[in-house]
Amino acid sequence: MTADAGFFADASLDRSRYLLATNVFETDREPREAAAHLAQEQSTAQWKRPGVDEDFRPRHGAKVVSLKVLGDLPRPSAPTPFDGPGPWRRCEAVLAHAIENFGAKIPTLLSVLLGEGAFYAPGIAAIRLTDIALPDAYAAQFPGPQFGVKGLRELLGVRDRPFFIGVVKPNIGLSPAEFAALAEEGWRGGLDAAKDDEMLPDTAWSPLADRARLCGEARKRAESATGERKLYVANITDEIGSLRPLHDNAVRGGANALLLNSIPLGLPATRYVREFAQVPIFSHFAMSAALTRGPSVGVDSSVLTLLQRLAGGDVILFPGTGARMRTTYDEVRANIDACRRPLGPIAPSLPVPGGSSRPPDVPATMAACSGVDFGLVAGRAVFNHPGGPASGARSFRQAWAAVQDDISLEEKARTSPELARSLETFRS
Amino acid sequence: MTADAGFFADASLDRSRYLLATNVFETDREPREAAAHLAQEQSTAQWKRPGVDEDFRPRHGAKVVSLKVLGDLPRPSAPTPFDGPGPWRRCEAVLAHAIENFGAKIPTLLSVLLGEGAFYAPGIAAIRLTDIALPDAYAAQFPGPQFGVKGLRELLGVRDRPFFIGVVKPNIGLSPAEFAALAEEGWRGGLDAAKDDEMLPDTAWSPLADRARLCGEARKRAESATGERKLYVANITDEIGSLRPLHDNAVRGGANALLLNSIPLGLPATRYVREFAQVPIFSHFAMSAALTRGPSVGVDSSVLTLLQRLAGGDVILFPGTGARMRTTYDEVRANIDACRRPLGPIAPSLPVPGGSSRPPDVPATMAACSGVDFGLVAGRAVFNHPGGPASGARSFRQAWAAVQDDISLEEKARTSPELARSLETFRS
Repeated sequence: MTADAGFFADASLDRSRYLLATNVFETDREPREAAAHLAQEQSTAQWKRPGVDEDFRPRHGAKVVSLKVLGDLPRPSAPTPFDGPGPWRRCEAVLAHAIENFGAKIPTLLSVLLGEGAFYAPGIAAIRLTDIALPDAYAAQFPGPQFGVKGLRELLGVRDRPFFIGVVKPNIGLSPAEFAALAEEGWRGGLDAAKDDEMLPDTAWSPLADRARLCGEARKRAESATGERKLYVANITDEIGSLRPLHDNAVRGGANALLLNSIPLGLPATRYVREFAQVPIFSHFAMSAALTRGPSVGVDSSVLTLLQRLAGGDVILFPGTGARMRTTYDEVRANIDACRRPLGPIAPSLPVPGGSSRPPDVPATMAACSGVDFGLVAGRAVFNHPGGPASGARSFRQAWAAVQDDISLEEKARTSPELARSLETFRS
Repeated sequence: MTADAGFFADASLDRSRYLLATNVFETDREPREAAAHLAQEQSTAQWKRPGVDEDFRPRHGAKVVSLKVLGDLPRPSAPTPFDGPGPWRRCEAVLAHAIENFGAKIPTLLSVLLGEGAFYAPGIAAIRLTDIALPDAYAAQFPGPQFGVKGLRELLGVRDRPFFIGVVKPNIGLSPAEFAALAEEGWRGGLDAAKDDEMLPDTAWSPLADRARLCGEARKRAESATGERKLYVANITDEIGSLRPLHDNAVRGGANALLLNSIPLGLPATRYVREFAQVPIFSHFAMSAALTRGPSVGVDSSVLTLLQRLAGGDVILFPGTGARMRTTYDEVRANIDACRRPLGPIAPSLPVPGGSSRPPDVPATMAACSGVDFGLVAGRAVFNHPGGPASGARSFRQAWAAVQDDISLEEKARTSPELARSLETFRS
């Protein structure tokens, strides 16, 4: 069987009409044949009616733009009970998808790029979407962040340094008043933002309206005490019909940022909230690992980050480095790039390599992030600091100052008792 | 390090307050320690404030209900740059989650079961959610299907046989009039339902309003001609703000069922549409493979099917058996069970093992499905049948009759020319 020439691009391809998607796949077929199958299954699977002289491939077919063999494989990474014995090869194919097939809509786009056509193409055992590239005029049809990095800096008056974000802990079980008291201590110690845990939504035992009201009052006290502006990030993750009322109530109460778990909600929900949000949106990576951590199968986390940026995430959290998150520097850098790369008129989002940062992680995170346009997010290292949340927050600012002064954390700790306690407690 | 006893259930556990989640994971730790970490990370990661005499574990902590070692592993299935050298074991743990932590809300539930806590628990390299069990009173808080199997049978007057569903092909490129003409042929030949491809939403070159109006007219003609009631299943997959207008326009035009790509949309979007849908919802599996096909990582497709049932899917499509879909009978049966199992007051959904069924697949699919409460979905085998869509549809009814008569497809084909052409054309 030979590859269907109708699914390959030639020099005449009008790039402004196509989205480019990079896929890495494993096949035991001739690579050109496998890539053509992929293009066909992701677009005009059947491209004419029987007995009618027509061909939908030129206008609607996906087209292979480039193809290379990355290497041989001893076996495929995903089960393939019905495929041949090999030899197996890993290939990278860039496909051009006709934008008019799905429009500037995230769910229809995902239905093509990560749908049935991708994962059940003949001869392809495992496949992973590793990048997408959008023409500027197409990107312009998505909302993108309302505030972005620039808007966040203006809102908070924070310049020339990263943002310090704390997740209030204990994450589940505190009353709204207890929660607000801890958040206030964190703000007073130096946090820019105190946020709800991604597992703390609006609940019967901690109604978001109460939490937002008490946190709003606490935030204003902390702002007066420190002379700095602060954010309370309210987790409004909920069913679609509750998103707008929760937003309205939370903002009315005193929340001035939102947390959305964009993958459990669906990316369209983030875009939906973006339409009426009066405050910045923090988009969290919960559940992304189910799509990204299967080796050779699924999608790169940086693609999910790019989609969250298109949907309207002002701040995008993704798995960071370190012992707990087990994410490579390359993956973290790809996520940062997805927040910052040119994307038509879409503003950059603030990248936040998440997952329990501790002061000892600060130098490595800063090196991975390059520059100061990023956020550090800490949980237990602030709220389980033996000196309390204010000391925990202070220890992060001290760690940052050490990097600025180009001295080691240990040296800085000699004159910074909170950092010294952090290093003792969280070094492990 | 020993396992934290606060994260294990004892006989006093009030099952009515807990959702049970079964997880299979790979660890190089002592299994009880790994399971306790998992329970902790999925609930009260930090369960007290420093210096305060309190303990949130009894009320809010997840609890290990059962734990067994399934076997040894030569290596973990997911990359673990920071974990130890092993030995590695595969374990199955059932965890009880306090329902009051997340409520009867799909996105908050998913944020716990498939969130950061699951995939980044210390010592767990790979994890897969394989089943969930809900107390009846909790299940009752979800909408479930509005029509279900019973309602679909009443709506269509179809008794004692499966439902025959065709995906109109060519899937992308037809004008609304061409599309409606093919659907009409399919209905006249014996399809119960003609549906949009999951990659055919509302587009500029095939506006759903036009497609629905023309399909509505064609459907009524086919209903008159055959004396049977028929469904046109309109794909309204789109951004959140467009779902209700698309539903209203499609139904007004003549669509009498909806297709939703529930994973790209997010399951909350399906529940949202369920609130106002006047017609049955077909929930499609597009993108589920990105969550399910990574070996040892992610979630079983049957869990996604159960969640689509809770959200309101009347008809649930999932990957079927056969050469193209590469899904095992066990997985197909687990999906069927997720549609049919007792679930408080939630009605059964109609299971549809999807992915290009052909007449030769009918006996095996029927055997896997047991009984007649299921749907068969075909694309090319109907719409690329050499005799045209009516012949393609007829060949499916003939294949079903052969199974009913307990004769082979080949024997039936002797008196059924459309089936004979199908067997010649689609056998490979």
